[in-house]
Amino acid sequence: MNMDSTNIKRQQKDYWTLDKQHVIHPYTNFEKFSDEGSVIYAKGKGHHIYDEQGRAYLDGIAGLWCVNIGHGNEEIAETMAKQSQKLAYYNTFEDASSKPMAELGEKLAEISPGALNHVFYGTGGSMGNDTAVKIAHYYFNLLGKPNKKKILSRDLAYHGSTYLAHAITGISSTHMSFDLPHQLVHYLTAPYTYRNQGDRTLEEFIDFLVDEMEEAIIKIGPDNIAMFFAEPIMGAGGVIVPPGDYHKRTHALCKKYDILYVSDEVVTAFGRLGKMVSSKYLFDVEPDMCVYAKGISSGYIPLGATMISDQIHQVISKPKKDNPYFSHGFTYSGHALSCQVGLKNIEILERDNFCGHVSKWGPYFEEELGKLSEYGIVGEVRGSHYMLALEYVQNKETKESFAPEVNIGKRVYHHAKQLGLIIRPIGNLNVLSPPLTYDQKAIDNTINIMRESIERTIKDLIEEGLWQQ
Amino acid sequence: MNMDSTNIKRQQKDYWTLDKQHVIHPYTNFEKFSDEGSVIYAKGKGHHIYDEQGRAYLDGIAGLWCVNIGHGNEEIAETMAKQSQKLAYYNTFEDASSKPMAELGEKLAEISPGALNHVFYGTGGSMGNDTAVKIAHYYFNLLGKPNKKKILSRDLAYHGSTYLAHAITGISSTHMSFDLPHQLVHYLTAPYTYRNQGDRTLEEFIDFLVDEMEEAIIKIGPDNIAMFFAEPIMGAGGVIVPPGDYHKRTHALCKKYDILYVSDEVVTAFGRLGKMVSSKYLFDVEPDMCVYAKGISSGYIPLGATMISDQIHQVISKPKKDNPYFSHGFTYSGHALSCQVGLKNIEILERDNFCGHVSKWGPYFEEELGKLSEYGIVGEVRGSHYMLALEYVQNKETKESFAPEVNIGKRVYHHAKQLGLIIRPIGNLNVLSPPLTYDQKAIDNTINIMRESIERTIKDLIEEGLWQQ
Repeated sequence: MNMDSTNIKRQQKDYWTLDKQHVIHPYTNFEKFSDEGSVIYAKGKGHHIYDEQGRAYLDGIAGLWCVNIGHGNEEIAETMAKQSQKLAYYNTFEDASSKPMAELGEKLAEISPGALNHVFYGTGGSMGNDTAVKIAHYYFNLLGKPNKKKILSRDLAYHGSTYLAHAITGISSTHMSFDLPHQLVHYLTAPYTYRNQGDRTLEEFIDFLVDEMEEAIIKIGPDNIAMFFAEPIMGAGGVIVPPGDYHKRTHALCKKYDILYVSDEVVTAFGRLGKMVSSKYLFDVEPDMCVYAKGISSGYIPLGATMISDQIHQVISKPKKDNPYFSHGFTYSGHALSCQVGLKNIEILERDNFCGHVSKWGPYFEEELGKLSEYGIVGEVRGSHYMLALEYVQNKETKESFAPEVNIGKRVYHHAKQLGLIIRPIGNLNVLSPPLTYDQKAIDNTINIMRESIERTIKDLIEEGLWQQ
Repeated sequence: MNMDSTNIKRQQKDYWTLDKQHVIHPYTNFEKFSDEGSVIYAKGKGHHIYDEQGRAYLDGIAGLWCVNIGHGNEEIAETMAKQSQKLAYYNTFEDASSKPMAELGEKLAEISPGALNHVFYGTGGSMGNDTAVKIAHYYFNLLGKPNKKKILSRDLAYHGSTYLAHAITGISSTHMSFDLPHQLVHYLTAPYTYRNQGDRTLEEFIDFLVDEMEEAIIKIGPDNIAMFFAEPIMGAGGVIVPPGDYHKRTHALCKKYDILYVSDEVVTAFGRLGKMVSSKYLFDVEPDMCVYAKGISSGYIPLGATMISDQIHQVISKPKKDNPYFSHGFTYSGHALSCQVGLKNIEILERDNFCGHVSKWGPYFEEELGKLSEYGIVGEVRGSHYMLALEYVQNKETKESFAPEVNIGKRVYHHAKQLGLIIRPIGNLNVLSPPLTYDQKAIDNTINIMRESIERTIKDLIEEGLWQQ
């Protein structure tokens, strides 16, 4: 071994060790982490990322449903340098603003449906949802409805990781060993057709979900409920596409009972489903609040936004004698550099017609990935456009899942990684949510690697006596 | 008016209007905002910022106790461009890391006192404090102490604006019309000598504070208390420097009763008080957790960090059979670009010996500003190094405050702004927390403008019959 490669090796080893010694990663399985540590990724370009050894991978998950315009974008880099030389940050308390903060506000109002004309900025989705609840509570307090505070959410919903956002999240396994304000939240059945439809027809299943929601509203009392949170397509809960007119009917219930409808569009906005905003333009509902993050800046910089309607704004902005201040806000609300990056990112998305591209190639991606349901362990392939998932099963007929210790999602993930593709393992699922730069070639490569990875996994399972054809 | 200036005027007007139409600012007084809107700031360089009209101001508040290395730093701009071309973002769930994430972890462990060797990253102080509570609850649940959950905080404490961080914040005026989990928090008397000492000697006042804390612990029960939050010097609550050995004695109480001591160093770390970390190196306490933000990146990019001790880490990282995952984390936890900017910022702070500079000029700044207490409306000048405040009073003898509608802090602020200095008005206070680049000339200019602003304010007050010599 020559000196150069020794040096490279030592350097690599160092970061791996430093990381293990000092960093607590999100959602860590410490047992595994203390053995294996993390791969150190070093570079990204378009829809590829590279580890420290220079190995290339197709980034099948866009960082984490984030990097919509692709990695290593030169225009963003230039924008960063320019804006940061100019003005990266100044506070934005009522006296101060910046051109990027104002201009992005206008842009977000323009792309948002209906009366969503007002933005409160934050640095990500958790903070955006946390803010949505605080604003709703404030709103109902000002309206003299102090009991209207409870939140309707859904099993398997993912809304973030602050104390409050974590409580709204309905993935119960994530709640373990934490203390969260669950008493604020009521969890409804997820519109998870594959698992929850049972013997019902699709129409009956939707009726069931809507009836359950209405019964819950009546039982809790509409005067005690502030809001309903819904992702247009549920993300981390398993890429769950609600059936039929579920969204329209649950939205109608909210209107009927004066419950604010909050669309968590952290994953679904900014082109991933072929539209800039999905609640309105795919599912035909106009939310009272809409939360953006991830694709809003393609992950280049932490940025999030809570959009609120004219009606809510009118109430919360009404001058108050006793305490005139709306006492909510973060240091980096409206961070000038973050807003400028958001603006440039949206400019690129619109100028290069990413929505058109995803609308064109999304159906092809769905169709090609769908073909993998021919495999005996693939229970369902689902999702829409560039937001897709495979659910693995032990038994296709009974839909029986693999035991958790089989780690089926991770098995396929490891093979795919070896073959040069990053996908996301979540329990019995693999999620695919690539950069919107994904073209036919990248889709075909992804399908081929998925096919090979599933075949290798099946072979392993059979060899280990965990599955038979 | 020629075409050029018309165009400039229209352009300026537009951002001002767009901002008013679409942006909800943090801590807004909507009545004032709907009339006056915001100044659009366009540029920053060193300790100056510039509005859209090109007017220069001394930035006496470093954005918002943030921009420690000064505005428009070329090295940061270059770092941004380089890292963002390389890899701005990839998720950091257990499988993935980056060189900046690992290296900043090592650096933060190095500068942090004692056993604070593990970092959980976020995007700011609110999130950092929210995370500290979630980790403490998780920790005590794993230790089999499920009742150990309550939080000790203090009146006038500022710990952020998520649902939970806002509850820990003890500035009660900010709570109005919000619904917050106050039942989790017990607020102790602030160590606010000027207002709370009363007839006691300083020693008696400290005894009173410590006794009150111990009585509260005994009343609530140590088995029901998870943690105590303390800013080394209270920031937004009014730059309150605790007297004598207050910190050491409250820390000792925490140790005595097995209560985690959390130091909120969002404002006080990274040089503002002449030390990289203040809890240990100014006040001689070793926290169990330490929260950083603001100065960690000098505001150039949203970044925060919750440091936890080896002891806490050992417990939360112990493999668990039933659910192996530590289910907490944010998309932008360990954002590669943010970490790289943090690293470069700390490199600049250390290389250019900002702590030495602040240690040298801080006492001069304190002394010169202190001279303003000669004015009849200045009740107290307090603070330390580059974290200072003036408290105005109607009556120096009785310490009677001005009525809120006099808006005394804003009055001085407006004069200072006209004279080319930005300070922060908080009720009856003005806060000064400039970039650490502030040199003798900037300090002298600041003092001169403050002097003139106070004199003009006194003149106004006398003319309006609101005050007499």
